[in-house]
Parts: sequence; structure tokens; C-alpha cells
Amino acid sequence: MSEKAASTVILDHNSRDKISHHAGADVERVERIYMDYNATTPVDPEVISAVTDALHHAWGNPSSTYLPGAKAKDIITQARGSIATMIGGKAADIIFTSGGTEANNMVFHSALELFWSSRASAEGGREENHQLNGNKVLPHIITSNVEHDSIINAAEHLLKSGKADVTFLPVSKMTGRVEVDDVMAALRPSTCLVSVMLANNETGVIMPIRDICQKVRSAVRPSSSPRVLLHTDAAQAIGKIKVDARELGVDYMTIVGHKFYATRIGALYVNGPGSTTPLYPLLFGGGQERNFRPGTENTPMIAGLGKAAELVTSNLAVDEAHLLDIRLYLEQRLLAVFGKEKIHFNSHFPGTETLPNTCNVSIMGQGLQGRRVLSTCRRLLASVGAACHSGRGDQPSHILLNCGIAYHVAANALRISVGRATTRKDVDLVVEDLKEAVEKLEQKN
Amino acid sequence: MSEKAASTVILDHNSRDKISHHAGADVERVERIYMDYNATTPVDPEVISAVTDALHHAWGNPSSTYLPGAKAKDIITQARGSIATMIGGKAADIIFTSGGTEANNMVFHSALELFWSSRASAEGGREENHQLNGNKVLPHIITSNVEHDSIINAAEHLLKSGKADVTFLPVSKMTGRVEVDDVMAALRPSTCLVSVMLANNETGVIMPIRDICQKVRSAVRPSSSPRVLLHTDAAQAIGKIKVDARELGVDYMTIVGHKFYATRIGALYVNGPGSTTPLYPLLFGGGQERNFRPGTENTPMIAGLGKAAELVTSNLAVDEAHLLDIRLYLEQRLLAVFGKEKIHFNSHFPGTETLPNTCNVSIMGQGLQGRRVLSTCRRLLASVGAACHSGRGDQPSHILLNCGIAYHVAANALRISVGRATTRKDVDLVVEDLKEAVEKLEQKN
Repeated sequence: MSEKAASTVILDHNSRDKISHHAGADVERVERIYMDYNATTPVDPEVISAVTDALHHAWGNPSSTYLPGAKAKDIITQARGSIATMIGGKAADIIFTSGGTEANNMVFHSALELFWSSRASAEGGREENHQLNGNKVLPHIITSNVEHDSIINAAEHLLKSGKADVTFLPVSKMTGRVEVDDVMAALRPSTCLVSVMLANNETGVIMPIRDICQKVRSAVRPSSSPRVLLHTDAAQAIGKIKVDARELGVDYMTIVGHKFYATRIGALYVNGPGSTTPLYPLLFGGGQERNFRPGTENTPMIAGLGKAAELVTSNLAVDEAHLLDIRLYLEQRLLAVFGKEKIHFNSHFPGTETLPNTCNVSIMGQGLQGRRVLSTCRRLLASVGAACHSGRGDQPSHILLNCGIAYHVAANALRISVGRATTRKDVDLVVEDLKEAVEKLEQKN
Repeated sequence: MSEKAASTVILDHNSRDKISHHAGADVERVERIYMDYNATTPVDPEVISAVTDALHHAWGNPSSTYLPGAKAKDIITQARGSIATMIGGKAADIIFTSGGTEANNMVFHSALELFWSSRASAEGGREENHQLNGNKVLPHIITSNVEHDSIINAAEHLLKSGKADVTFLPVSKMTGRVEVDDVMAALRPSTCLVSVMLANNETGVIMPIRDICQKVRSAVRPSSSPRVLLHTDAAQAIGKIKVDARELGVDYMTIVGHKFYATRIGALYVNGPGSTTPLYPLLFGGGQERNFRPGTENTPMIAGLGKAAELVTSNLAVDEAHLLDIRLYLEQRLLAVFGKEKIHFNSHFPGTETLPNTCNVSIMGQGLQGRRVLSTCRRLLASVGAACHSGRGDQPSHILLNCGIAYHVAANALRISVGRATTRKDVDLVVEDLKEAVEKLEQKN
């Protein structure tokens, strides 16, 4: 480890659930307080134990037939069951992937493969269909304009390379949501996939996935139309609210470990992969994951994902109540300290449900752009939007702009997302920190 | 962890390098001895430390701009450098992937994308080219008939789906190798990729990659021909022999952590990705790995991969000598105990270099099929071939058959692959174990 890396230490372990989230140490040794749980979560100590245990004792190749192999396979089987339980599916519905990005890309790939293979059987060969000069009907995908980059960019790639038509549905500027009627209006005879996130990573807005699934499934479609596959990326929802894939009615659901105190690995829920729901592999290899996703299994990370899923299943009610309490307290303190006129909550849409943990707030005033405020803070670790947009400089979040937040408000936005380990005391310290930062910046102006 | 899993314990830690490879405990509590290092390796204790340390202290999102994010990024940067050093490349040449399967599939994908994009620019549009009814020239790939499943099955998928022509070059039955002349003879104007493994997983045969690269690069080709990309899957070679990508002259090289005491993660070496060598992403997302392979980075596993690479760089000379000593001792003991007429080494080809650690041996006699012998052994944990073929029942390895090993010899094959932690005492115990197993089976006949 480098000198620089080694000097960054976790200073404290929160006693509530033993997850350390007080991160780093600056020159003045002020304790930093992590409130960017939507970017990633610290790894739960029980998850670390599961991973470490597997690294020591389950390193056998799960495909090997002797005991160390069988042991690794058992761990994987158990984890698969725990993940299925967490999201209301069957063990056989869980396909491990390297993460959410791969899971999302796999869904797009499957939808296109299904589209072409059903066209081929309907029209007597895929090749012919490809060659209807100028009249080629492309598969059509519906998604939203506030999705994660792994959806937006996968869709844009298909669009640019002429492999699919894509509708990026604007979310309602009144509700921050993808509206069911808009999905229905966007449906075409060639639509083969609707992919809408379960909860937005920046606003925390919960999308009406259940309604979308019900309405799309009951839509009357031309007999020649492909099946419309239904996908939700549940990365931000799992561990924060109850998520039940069957209740939602989706065909596919993306599961991302590092958003619920697990490690950097993911899974794709598929409702009956290869039977009820088609699934076409992106990769070819040694037959693992029933050939849907080959490659020697990452046993330790899978063990960790399974443990994290167990913790979600056992603790969700308590966690959800805690997150809500902390976030409401944070919002209340912000209003009390800065005053109503100075605070704009970018995640408050009348009548819209949101994640319990996500506070997207702008402290209004000149020179109080999100990045400036955060870099002036001595304690708070938060962000101005999705972590993978961190290279985009000082532009306000396009997600917020797409949600109808005015440019000058979005420019000041802070995404403060709390977690299992966040306490009211942390909130007090952070609000005080913000107050000092804002005062400092206002003196400069 | 399940009851069953928990009851399997590693009984011993080998003092030489502290890697435990004595695995499991059967009813009689006889210590099992692991000699299947080509299937997977135990994780080095220093690698476990690196992973665990990162799980605790580097959980930040590497894309986040604050300290915990920067720390994770530093660890990734350092690991990238260590891996580059290990295989003689530059840090910028290393793209992290979920493993070897993904890396191999990415190479095939890149070769096809390059083929079509150069056709498109040569012929005025990819679309037109696609539509040369009946006369479509497909990209042509050359590989061997002894590759890993992630190459064989990726190639077969392209072949079956009409996306590429593939030549599966037979290895020479005299040398067990892909012969350079055969590669040259297979080259077509449409060839866009030659993919040959650096060392075979079952026989340990080292392929003449350097010669292949030199000859292919100097071949005179029609001006309209695509560039022939050169790939080697170095999964089995790294950590056992010196591997230098630039000396070999490849464009791409697959790196697989769990074959050199790291974790289940991999990397693709690309000689100047996106500049000297084209690389087309399989996945789209948040821009990580310079957009070549997006998805939030698996910091802990990358830290482990980096540490394992450092260990290879520091210890290769000692390790290689040790592996050779142990394997030669094993072969000598097998000959001494069973007699020359009863032993057939399937990995001995006159004039062919092999990995130092791989002994593929058949103990000749009726009823001594590999699986029967292994399941009668009380100590030895080995295999009859690649772990991902373990579900294929009693058929002899197609790899051995393709190498010209007679059916009745291949049927009795044992792949015994030793590792850093294997001792001469282990060899004595294993050979004694094999002797008892063979006696038991012969009494049954």
C-alpha cells in the first residue's frame, strides 16, 4: 500500500452496528463524517468476516468435485438463496454478475437477442430481416432520462450504432417520476424492453414500477409484436425499502452489492431464467451459472453478498425506520439553521415517495455551488450527484435539471445520503459544519 | 455458513510460504493434499491481508473525489502498476476485468468490431457490406483445439450464430503444440484474430507464441485485409514461468488472478489500448477503466491481484525452480513405485517445453480410470482435466485426445499440478496414496 493510502485511517467504529463510516483524517485531524451512502457503503463487518472466511477456507474451484470444491459450491448455493429471499425470488432466479453495470448490459443484450430471434422465427430467418433495405425495423427500448450511466450509455450505444431505437422518457417535472401514462404512450409495436430504475440515486424518487409492469403487461399489442421485457435497476432501493421482485412484476431486476454494505459484486434477478424469461449470455465459457454467466465464481465476494442479503432481510424494518428518522432530522436541522428561504429540497415532490435516506438539498445564495460548499466543509463527505459523474466539473447534475430543478438551484445541490451507521449527533456536526462552510464562503463574496 | 461448509477445515498451514493447501478432512481425519493448482490456487496470506485491508479501509467509491475515494483510486493505481510490471507492460496497458472469461470474450468482441469498422471505412459503410447478399465475407478467427472453454465456446458461438468463421487448429500430435506453420497456412485474407493459449492447462505444454506473433506480423497480406490481432490467454503460465507480453509480441494477454494465488478477478493486457491496439468495450456505463470496462471498481479484489503480482515478480525464480524440483521428484517417484511400463506421462512430448508444475500421468491397467483412482485415494486432491469439465462424466479429456494420447491411456489420466506450498514429503505421501488406491482397485478387478 502506498504511503498516502496507508495514512488514511478509519478513526472510529460506530457502536450501533459496528460499521465504521467516519473516514479519513485531514491535517487538522477533524473526524470526517461520511454521508454519501448512495455512492457506496462501507462493508459490513459480518460481510468482511464472510469474505475473509471464504478467502481462507473456500478457495477451491467450485467446479472441482472434491471437498474444497464442493464447499465453495455450498457457499455459493447458500448465498444464492439468501439473495433470492431478500428480493422475493427463487434461488434459481439469481444469476451472479460482476456488478450492476454488467447486469444492466446483460438485460439490454437479452432484449435485443430475443427481438431478433423472435423476428427470425416469425419472418423466416434473421438474415432476411436484416436485409429489408431501408425498411429495417429496429428493436425499440423505453427507458427514462434519469437512469444510471450503465443504462443511459448502454442505450445510447445501441442508438448510435444503429442497433436499437430508444425512447428516453422525460420524468415528470411535477413528480420526479416516470409516469405510467408516458410509458404507455411511448410503446410501439417494436418495443421489446422497458427499463426504469426502482429509485433514483440523486433524488431518491421511487418509480411506479409495479404500475408500469401491470399496465404494460395488459396492453393490447399486434400479434407480430415482440414480448415487452420489464426491467428495473434496484441498485439504490435494496436495503433502504422493501423490494419484492414478484410483487413488482418485473422480469429482470439488477442487484448491486456495494450499495447495501456488501462488496463490489452484483446479481441479476431473472424470473425463471431461460424458461419464463429469456436470458442470453454476454459471455461464453466454462458453463458456470448454468451457462448464463460463465467464469469461475468469485466465491468470497458471493459469500459476502449473501451475508449482506441476510442482514437486509433481518434488519430492513429497523434500518428503514432509522434512515427515515435521521434524514427527517437532517432536513429539520437544515431548515432550523439556515431558514426556510435559504433551503431548497430537490428531492421533495408533492405526492411522490422517496428513499428514506436521501436528502438532496440546495443552500441558496451566490457562490454556494455544491462543490464549493463540500470542499469548504471540514467534516462532511457527500457529493453533488452520482459518483461516476465526478469528473464532469462544475455543471449542475443533469438528473436534477431533468427533474425540473432550476439551473441556479441545481448548481448548489448537495446529495446527502445517510446510512445504517449515521447518528443524530453526526447530523448535528454536519449541519454545524455546513453552517461554517457557508459563512466562510459568504464572507468571500 | 452452512453446517456442512463449516465442518470442512483447513488442517494445516505449510510453513514454507504459509499457504495452506492441506484441505478438508474425511471421516478418518486423513489429511488431504491439494495438487490441483492448475484448477485454482489457495489465496496467499499476503493477498488475503491486502483484500481485508481494502475491505476495511478502502471501501470508498474510487470515483468519489474526497479522501476515501482517492484512497481507493490510489490502491487501484498501485495494483495496475504491479500487474504491468509482472507481465512486462505499462500500467496503462492493464484493464481490470471480472476474470479470464470476460477478458477472453472481450478480445473476440474487439476483433470483430475492428473487422467491421475497418470494412465499413474501406467499403463505404458497414450496412452495405452486411447486405452483400450471400457474399458476405465473415471475419475469420484462428485458435487451437486445446484452448480453455472461454475461448472454445466463445468461438463456437460466433461460428454457430454466423458471426465469424473459425479455424480450430489441431495441435501437433508429436509436440502437443500449435505449430507456427499451421497458423501461417490457416491465415486467410479475412483473418482478424489469432488466439492461442500460452500454456495448456492439462498438459502444461508451452505454445510458441513469440514465433507465431513474429511470423504473422511479417506475413504479406492483401491491402484490403484487416489487421490480424494477436492474443494469448496466459492464465496457466503466469506465476509458473516468466511471461513478458512485449517479448512475446502479443496485442492482448489474458491475466487470471486465481491461478497465481490471487482472488477471482482478472485483467486484460492490451498493448496501448485504444491507440496502438483497438479495444472495444463489451459493457457501457460510468466511465471506469477509461470506458473500456465500466462498473465501480472491485477495489479489494484489485488490491489482492496487485499484491499477488508483486509476489510473482519477487519470487518467480525461486518458485519456478521449486515447482520443477517437486514435479520432477513426483515423476521420478511414480516411475520408481509403479515401474516404467505402468506409467505413461501424457505431458512428455519430445522437444516441447512444459510448465514446471504440471504432471499429466496415466497409471496403466484395467479399471484404473482417472476418476476411479482419484475417488479411491485418501489423500490426493487432483483432477482428470480442467475443473470446468468436471460435469462431463467418464469421457477422457478431449484435450489429451487432441494431443494424440490414445483413448485407453487418456481414460486413465490424472492431472497432478503442484504449487508453491507442495513439498517432497507431500509427494511421498501422495505416491504412497496412489499405490494403495491402485492396489485396492486391482484387487477389485
